[in-house]
Amino acid sequence: MGKKNIPYIEETYDVVVVGAGHAGCEAALACARLGLETMMFTVSVDSIALMPCNPNIGGSSKGHLVREIDALGGEMGKNIDKTFIQSKMLNKSKGPAVHSLRAQADKAEYTKEMRKTLQNTDHLSIRQAEVAEILTNKDQFFPEDEYHEGEEQKITGVRTVSGGVYRCKAVVLCTGTYLRARCLTGEMITHTGPNGLSAANHLTDSLVAHGIQTRRFKTGTPARVDKRSLDFSKMEEQFGDERVVPFSFTTNPEDVQIEQASCWLTYTNETTHEIIRNNLDRSPIYAGIIEGTGPRYCPSIEDKVVKFADKNRHQIFIEPEGLSTNEMYVGGMSSSLPEDVQHEMYRTLPGLEHVKIVRNAYAIEYDCIDANNLYASLEFKAMKGLFSGGQFNGSSGYEEAACQGLIAGINAAMEIKGRDPLILDRSEAYIGVLIDDLVTKKNREPYRMMTSRAEYRLLLRQDNADLRLTKKGYEIGLISQERYDWVCKKEELIKKEIERVNEVKLGANARVQNVLEQYGSIPLHTGTTLSDLIRRPELDYDKLAEIDTDRPDLPAEVTEQVNILIKYDGYISRQIKQVEKFKKLEKKKLPEKFDYNEISGLRIEAQQKLNEFQPLNIGQASRISGVTPADISVLLVYLEQLKYSNPDLFFKLNPDEHKEKQE
Amino acid sequence: MGKKNIPYIEETYDVVVVGAGHAGCEAALACARLGLETMMFTVSVDSIALMPCNPNIGGSSKGHLVREIDALGGEMGKNIDKTFIQSKMLNKSKGPAVHSLRAQADKAEYTKEMRKTLQNTDHLSIRQAEVAEILTNKDQFFPEDEYHEGEEQKITGVRTVSGGVYRCKAVVLCTGTYLRARCLTGEMITHTGPNGLSAANHLTDSLVAHGIQTRRFKTGTPARVDKRSLDFSKMEEQFGDERVVPFSFTTNPEDVQIEQASCWLTYTNETTHEIIRNNLDRSPIYAGIIEGTGPRYCPSIEDKVVKFADKNRHQIFIEPEGLSTNEMYVGGMSSSLPEDVQHEMYRTLPGLEHVKIVRNAYAIEYDCIDANNLYASLEFKAMKGLFSGGQFNGSSGYEEAACQGLIAGINAAMEIKGRDPLILDRSEAYIGVLIDDLVTKKNREPYRMMTSRAEYRLLLRQDNADLRLTKKGYEIGLISQERYDWVCKKEELIKKEIERVNEVKLGANARVQNVLEQYGSIPLHTGTTLSDLIRRPELDYDKLAEIDTDRPDLPAEVTEQVNILIKYDGYISRQIKQVEKFKKLEKKKLPEKFDYNEISGLRIEAQQKLNEFQPLNIGQASRISGVTPADISVLLVYLEQLKYSNPDLFFKLNPDEHKEKQE
Repeated sequence: MGKKNIPYIEETYDVVVVGAGHAGCEAALACARLGLETMMFTVSVDSIALMPCNPNIGGSSKGHLVREIDALGGEMGKNIDKTFIQSKMLNKSKGPAVHSLRAQADKAEYTKEMRKTLQNTDHLSIRQAEVAEILTNKDQFFPEDEYHEGEEQKITGVRTVSGGVYRCKAVVLCTGTYLRARCLTGEMITHTGPNGLSAANHLTDSLVAHGIQTRRFKTGTPARVDKRSLDFSKMEEQFGDERVVPFSFTTNPEDVQIEQASCWLTYTNETTHEIIRNNLDRSPIYAGIIEGTGPRYCPSIEDKVVKFADKNRHQIFIEPEGLSTNEMYVGGMSSSLPEDVQHEMYRTLPGLEHVKIVRNAYAIEYDCIDANNLYASLEFKAMKGLFSGGQFNGSSGYEEAACQGLIAGINAAMEIKGRDPLILDRSEAYIGVLIDDLVTKKNREPYRMMTSRAEYRLLLRQDNADLRLTKKGYEIGLISQERYDWVCKKEELIKKEIERVNEVKLGANARVQNVLEQYGSIPLHTGTTLSDLIRRPELDYDKLAEIDTDRPDLPAEVTEQVNILIKYDGYISRQIKQVEKFKKLEKKKLPEKFDYNEISGLRIEAQQKLNEFQPLNIGQASRISGVTPADISVLLVYLEQLKYSNPDLFFKLNPDEHKEKQE
Repeated sequence: MGKKNIPYIEETYDVVVVGAGHAGCEAALACARLGLETMMFTVSVDSIALMPCNPNIGGSSKGHLVREIDALGGEMGKNIDKTFIQSKMLNKSKGPAVHSLRAQADKAEYTKEMRKTLQNTDHLSIRQAEVAEILTNKDQFFPEDEYHEGEEQKITGVRTVSGGVYRCKAVVLCTGTYLRARCLTGEMITHTGPNGLSAANHLTDSLVAHGIQTRRFKTGTPARVDKRSLDFSKMEEQFGDERVVPFSFTTNPEDVQIEQASCWLTYTNETTHEIIRNNLDRSPIYAGIIEGTGPRYCPSIEDKVVKFADKNRHQIFIEPEGLSTNEMYVGGMSSSLPEDVQHEMYRTLPGLEHVKIVRNAYAIEYDCIDANNLYASLEFKAMKGLFSGGQFNGSSGYEEAACQGLIAGINAAMEIKGRDPLILDRSEAYIGVLIDDLVTKKNREPYRMMTSRAEYRLLLRQDNADLRLTKKGYEIGLISQERYDWVCKKEELIKKEIERVNEVKLGANARVQNVLEQYGSIPLHTGTTLSDLIRRPELDYDKLAEIDTDRPDLPAEVTEQVNILIKYDGYISRQIKQVEKFKKLEKKKLPEKFDYNEISGLRIEAQQKLNEFQPLNIGQASRISGVTPADISVLLVYLEQLKYSNPDLFFKLNPDEHKEKQE
């Protein structure tokens, strides 16, 4: 590389996507489907949409992300619906806010199907090549590039290790865990990406040379073991749901009622923990060989044993990696201990006494960025046209990666089309919470989505992701007219049915009392409305069908919403009010690229943080660690005063007031 | 590695197979099916039975190898029958000796199916790990190891990079192109195995330290291109056969009558050649960067342009890589020219004017051995228990690799079981020709099978591989009783039918003349036998059904043999006589580990060569380059004299004569 006198090929695209993992796939598909000529680079075409760790999609809060991706026009939900082998709605005994869908994937089929989709998407090209450099106008690589000292840099292209130069208007970095990756199993260190794939060793230098700081994070994966060496009679069988719910709102529910595979549950014990404790000095993390920071909420087994020393067992899930392989994933037992310790410790688990390990557990360390360097659009603050999504932004998890890839791809496209970026706020989507957390909070370890991170989780349910986001996907251009029309219709059907149910009066007659008795519900003393009965914990919309004689024939997805919205009416109304308050602050825009030293009332720490983060609005500013409520008051006063001190800026930030003024 | 104070896991197997390519798969399956505890190592479980180059199995003479593998109980034929997408019997217009079956594979399905078979074979374990060292009794690694100076070394185990130690009685090396591999595309060099997979960088040092010499060979692969960027209207469509013949003798022919994919034919032209000639200085081969020797019979396009300068075009076959991918293989256009030259030259081909390359062509260079270091059993002469098969032995091609893997695996098992090795001679099988060529001839480039290499090719047909080899496979233990019984029955049916056909007399009656006229055959003047009519070029067994009123109902595979054996009777008899002469020489065994300097009548060069090769018999000795017919006469005289000068040795070499003597 760098021998600039060597001839090279030159091609021109709108967008270049670097990486073909879960983020890269969504980014590339979004751009191409929006009609932009898109080039996706990958170190291995055979590893597109690879699942290098757990063999499942979804799970607590991650299931929400997948449904949101789907409502916006992304692919992950469709792809897992085509390739799952077991599916389960988690937390069904709890409230609908925390219901989460999780499906076991056939890993090989998952990558095959995604690759097929990508390879048959118009405007999308795929190339097996390692991107070595980003090119900007400052590099003046192309004759038309202009740059004046002090100006913002702008993406103009990328260059690959093999010497190709690709002009483009935007680049989306989705490098996952591949940048300068190294894998560790005890004393053994190999300089590869996940599962022995080639690491990408060139791009970091180019990013740093262009002023982008990187840091080291780490994550890990457990061993894969031979199914034939396990004794399942010593484990608890875990079945899928009897009636499977698809991830995608476009999947016909009948198509996902398949014969499902089983998972298995076993536990660690004191012997396991003792082996681990006795060998901690040989763990690369405890021995100080790993510099990167690991995910707190997806810890290695050695972390669990150290941090929860009082627990005498941990759950271990044995999950199939697919239907055509005998390899099983040992969920919950990620490790970077040496091979001999792994061999010993896995064999202490009931059912694994004679386990044959096929692939060792390992930790992987890689270059990523602090997402504080990004706008909420996932564009780099310091470089126009450079976007990034996925694990490279400091997150963890396939679903977290995919939703960022989707947003980064959409916003690269929006910028090229001269349109506003898609920024979801914390009241609209888990995706909004995730990205807001990434760009405004100090994340010192790989960020994982959790329901507890969402303030308005009764509104951000997995069941209503379509109602929340399909219209936005339609406006962006990723949702068909048909799908959009259906969501509008669905909204209307829900609204009408709630109105009707609120008005249906029921007397204390024998037929009604009978149904109530049947469900152990207190008999009526006087007349009431149907909705009041629906609110009773032991009853619901469906159970009352018999006494609701004029009930229209509505799709299950409509009646499900009617039921939830009536039952949780009070809580939901309260959250909607909180959201209104939140929205007011979110609406108060702050100036772009502003020097907060100008606001003398702010504390110095707040000035520094605000200068660093450049929040889009008061809401974002309030969530930056180091910015206090007192600082927010100062900002609010400053914004009010702008109307008189700097009316141009004021009306730029408040275009609506401007219009009123002109009228 | 090498930190011997670090604890390690220790497991015990009968056989360790290093590598999971086409050789490794056959070796591991053979050993496990023969009941030996077998461990197969691979750098990537996801790349088992990977087809890193052309997407097909079989072809001229290679199709013969696959059928021979099948007749001996190997897997390749069965696996391609399950996963092919087009199939064709080549050379059908020529004689049956050169008919060869070739099938296009769905690459992803091929590896998936083979992996499934391996993972469900009893006694077979698979581990993703790189083998770093072989261990011998000389290393005295295990407490029981004994070694006295000057003794032959004996395999005792292997050690992996991750620190595992595996005791075993035999090791089969099937490292293919992975040892210290590097890939070259013009100026770009990456230190990886095929398709960006990890190279194996440790084992060579251990082999060398144990006295095994290695050398560098190279091979190459063309680009893969996006189907959607091709204009098929400018190419010639290549269809599969209307009636597909399976590779495996166990596959039901009805199961392979599938809907087939098409291949396409296009050509290079003078513009292509000019681009290549203008950039030869940038080819790593012509620039002297590659030290390895490439395959003469599978040359890169730059080699073809240089060596056949007078040809103004070369055939290029565009072949699908599978049904679920859009990638197409550009057969005939392997290259190590730089990316920009590839970009330019591929676009000169009709139909490829706007081609989008997905993966670049590249050359790959790797460590392999000179197979002269091996016995015909594929065991190393210098180390008991160390076998090797496949590209590592200096061959080229999936089928060449697979058949060596099978023989190496069988012979590792035979040695452990204390049985004689399976050595096929040149009159029995293409496999015999291939291994004999490898171990007795000086191969200065990757060895490729060709029908012209077989002296007795009228006997070694693809159609009779089962009749030639099933019994041997049965004796080894890889063929079921049922399959064996059927071959015996089939032989009998063929024999009886030939006898019958030889005796069926036909008069010059109207019915006979009618049939003859129908096929443009001269009318009979007098009575004749049915077999005489079958011998007429324009007629065959099937065409004469109408006038053969007592014909029994026989399976097509029987009547096919009857037809061929009658039609080519004369040629076949002549070859059988040649084989008898050949067998006589092959039967004359030479002493093991013999010092040929003792035979003073031999020329010095012959003494050296014979000492180096240690041929098993006079036949092998006669094929060693540097050994003349005069030397062979000296050897024959010497063997005769042994009866008197060294009767012990003589009767050891001629146990049959010994028996006679004792009786």
